Amino acid sequence: MTSQYTLGRRVMEHIHALDAFTNEPGRLTRLYLSPAHKAAAEHVRGLMIAAGLDAHVDAVGNVVGRYGSADLPTLYLGSHIDSVVDAGRHDGPLGVMCALIAAEEIARDGARLPFALEVLAFGDEENVRFPTSLSTSYAVVGRYDDAWLDGCDAKGTSLREALVAFGGDPAGIAAVARDPARCVGYLEVHIEQGPVLEAQDLPIGVVTAINAAIRARCKVTGEAGHAGTVPMSMRRDALAASAQMIAAIERIGADYPDAVATVGQLTVSPGAVNVIPGGVAFTLDARAPQDAACKAMVAQIMDACRAIAQERGVAFAEERFVDTPATPMDAHLVAALVEGAKRAGASAIELPSGAGHDAVAMAALGPVGMLFVRCEKGISHNPAENITVADADAAVRSLIETIRVLGEEQGR
Amino acid sequence: MTSQYTLGRRVMEHIHALDAFTNEPGRLTRLYLSPAHKAAAEHVRGLMIAAGLDAHVDAVGNVVGRYGSADLPTLYLGSHIDSVVDAGRHDGPLGVMCALIAAEEIARDGARLPFALEVLAFGDEENVRFPTSLSTSYAVVGRYDDAWLDGCDAKGTSLREALVAFGGDPAGIAAVARDPARCVGYLEVHIEQGPVLEAQDLPIGVVTAINAAIRARCKVTGEAGHAGTVPMSMRRDALAASAQMIAAIERIGADYPDAVATVGQLTVSPGAVNVIPGGVAFTLDARAPQDAACKAMVAQIMDACRAIAQERGVAFAEERFVDTPATPMDAHLVAALVEGAKRAGASAIELPSGAGHDAVAMAALGPVGMLFVRCEKGISHNPAENITVADADAAVRSLIETIRVLGEEQGR
Repeated sequence: MTSQYTLGRRVMEHIHALDAFTNEPGRLTRLYLSPAHKAAAEHVRGLMIAAGLDAHVDAVGNVVGRYGSADLPTLYLGSHIDSVVDAGRHDGPLGVMCALIAAEEIARDGARLPFALEVLAFGDEENVRFPTSLSTSYAVVGRYDDAWLDGCDAKGTSLREALVAFGGDPAGIAAVARDPARCVGYLEVHIEQGPVLEAQDLPIGVVTAINAAIRARCKVTGEAGHAGTVPMSMRRDALAASAQMIAAIERIGADYPDAVATVGQLTVSPGAVNVIPGGVAFTLDARAPQDAACKAMVAQIMDACRAIAQERGVAFAEERFVDTPATPMDAHLVAALVEGAKRAGASAIELPSGAGHDAVAMAALGPVGMLFVRCEKGISHNPAENITVADADAAVRSLIETIRVLGEEQGR
Repeated sequence: MTSQYTLGRRVMEHIHALDAFTNEPGRLTRLYLSPAHKAAAEHVRGLMIAAGLDAHVDAVGNVVGRYGSADLPTLYLGSHIDSVVDAGRHDGPLGVMCALIAAEEIARDGARLPFALEVLAFGDEENVRFPTSLSTSYAVVGRYDDAWLDGCDAKGTSLREALVAFGGDPAGIAAVARDPARCVGYLEVHIEQGPVLEAQDLPIGVVTAINAAIRARCKVTGEAGHAGTVPMSMRRDALAASAQMIAAIERIGADYPDAVATVGQLTVSPGAVNVIPGGVAFTLDARAPQDAACKAMVAQIMDACRAIAQERGVAFAEERFVDTPATPMDAHLVAALVEGAKRAGASAIELPSGAGHDAVAMAALGPVGMLFVRCEKGISHNPAENITVADADAAVRSLIETIRVLGEEQGR
């Protein structure tokens, strides 16, 4: 062994090279269909060709690199190369470059697999520029909504116009769809965007599910009054009631395994130092690995809030505005990722994903699996986002071994 | 008895007559030294003269009506005739008119008292127009701060200019001060501005103290994070911590007799539905009838907040920006008001005042006592403010009897 972490080092070099493709000098912002996205896509296509893949940019802007003959079923590998505004560099590119290096290693190996590999660099995962949701990965699974083409960015440019300017082809989107019957599965490497792996001192984790999410707006209505003259026993303080509800939300959220429940916004009215709060509005964001658990948790939270409201003589109302089902990872792919990590010598735990990924869309095509990589302090969507070369190396080697595990299984 | 509540009816008629004196057609706003205040003061002076008092408007705009010779010590009776913006009609005028009718009844009676009565209609209790605090009652006790004359209203008019335009006399303010040695005491009737008397189905209450007040700004600093990816056990949620603190504040506030503790303002940062709150700022407003109790309660609250912060690994900081001592009512005057109410056939309880009044300033001159009158739903500083004729009658008769009780005592 001449040098440690050679594959991880190459993954990181490829990630860093993408820094140059940004819409804003001095910080990383690479929005879907922007000139920076176009340049990055061409750059990635070049890397794919150099890696021995047949590569092209498809009708919606995905970069696609294939290893293996057209008649084979396909194992898809990938992630995205678009970013949020003022982004970190690893969110998306890590998965694309791990997929690319893995395909390159396997191609170089000359190993004959019972399936083709296709590396996908999606273009619209962050849903920042247009009012879309995973539009480029939904194109691949054949669930593109043509209404998305009419959505406009902040400057009034429609997705259709931007796609044509990019060199894409609105009329060609339907043809991007793959055949589910010929899909072996989809594997995605991604930074964790949370603190669990770091806390457990582990480089990687195998994702069990992308959590279900329910969001609600809650409203507590009590009675405003003079903070000096209304005795404590005669108050219907909307904030004191909300405080008790927040405590219940925190307790119930902690009771459900791998679930979270968060009150992120709260406003008080009238909001004066000497006035008892008459009204409070707050949001609930609840997530759990199974739909049933998410629904049960939110039901228990709302029951608790209603009981607190009744006990205190305040009114409680709630309105749900997000209800996203969970995307469970395929048990077989989870097992293959665990085995692959083991062969690569990497310790891994299983953990849910609290954030959404292209795998949510790809699950409509076939089985999906994800590998999380430890990120510093759990920070993402921020220039401070960071991972180590050693962890990138563990991830790419685990991915390669997982592909081999699947090859052995399917070859039997 | 020809008619019920004759005195209460006259008090209410006098109060209603003041509605005409407003700075804003259609709603009641009577700011210190405004043309409406000037007209109201002249109107009240006329009522005083009609009631048989020697009346004048003094150098700071107080209307003063005296019954009794100059060589007698003085029992002061009064309240204020200025108002907040979009005010109720009883806050202030009730006390002035009860004093006026009481003095008139006693004058008509021909009763010889061992002290003179002086009815005071103060002009600057609400402290709305200028950056002052009870300036007109502080003038009477000889604690006028001449710096107040340089304070300006929102239009840039100084108090000095407004006072001259009103017909007042900045150079004559010092002479307004009364001699504490010749002060028998000060009695003030006022609407309760709270719900206690209504809840107990009582027309009036004898005030035990104007509560001490401490206000603080509190800051909780945790760590912001992704609401989907940071497990409940790894969070340092500033809002969940604040919720626990608010519960402690409510509990501790309820533990101290006649005390209140209120969190009226609260803001969350960053305040996004999918972000764990990293920071919260909230206010505390704490009041209690004794300074020691108020300080002890706030100390206990801050200890509880610090303990919660430590347990949760968040930072807690507090900054106090108001610390107003209590104004205890004079025990002898409290007893006289209780006896007076009893003679008037009115049931009364003793209760603290959570709001400030001219009695706070007058306490620097001599003993002070206050009578609270039940107000509908505890509402004040609002056009919906309301009291009944029956309760006004109970109040003015109790005041008259209290003056007689004091006269008998002092005459012995």
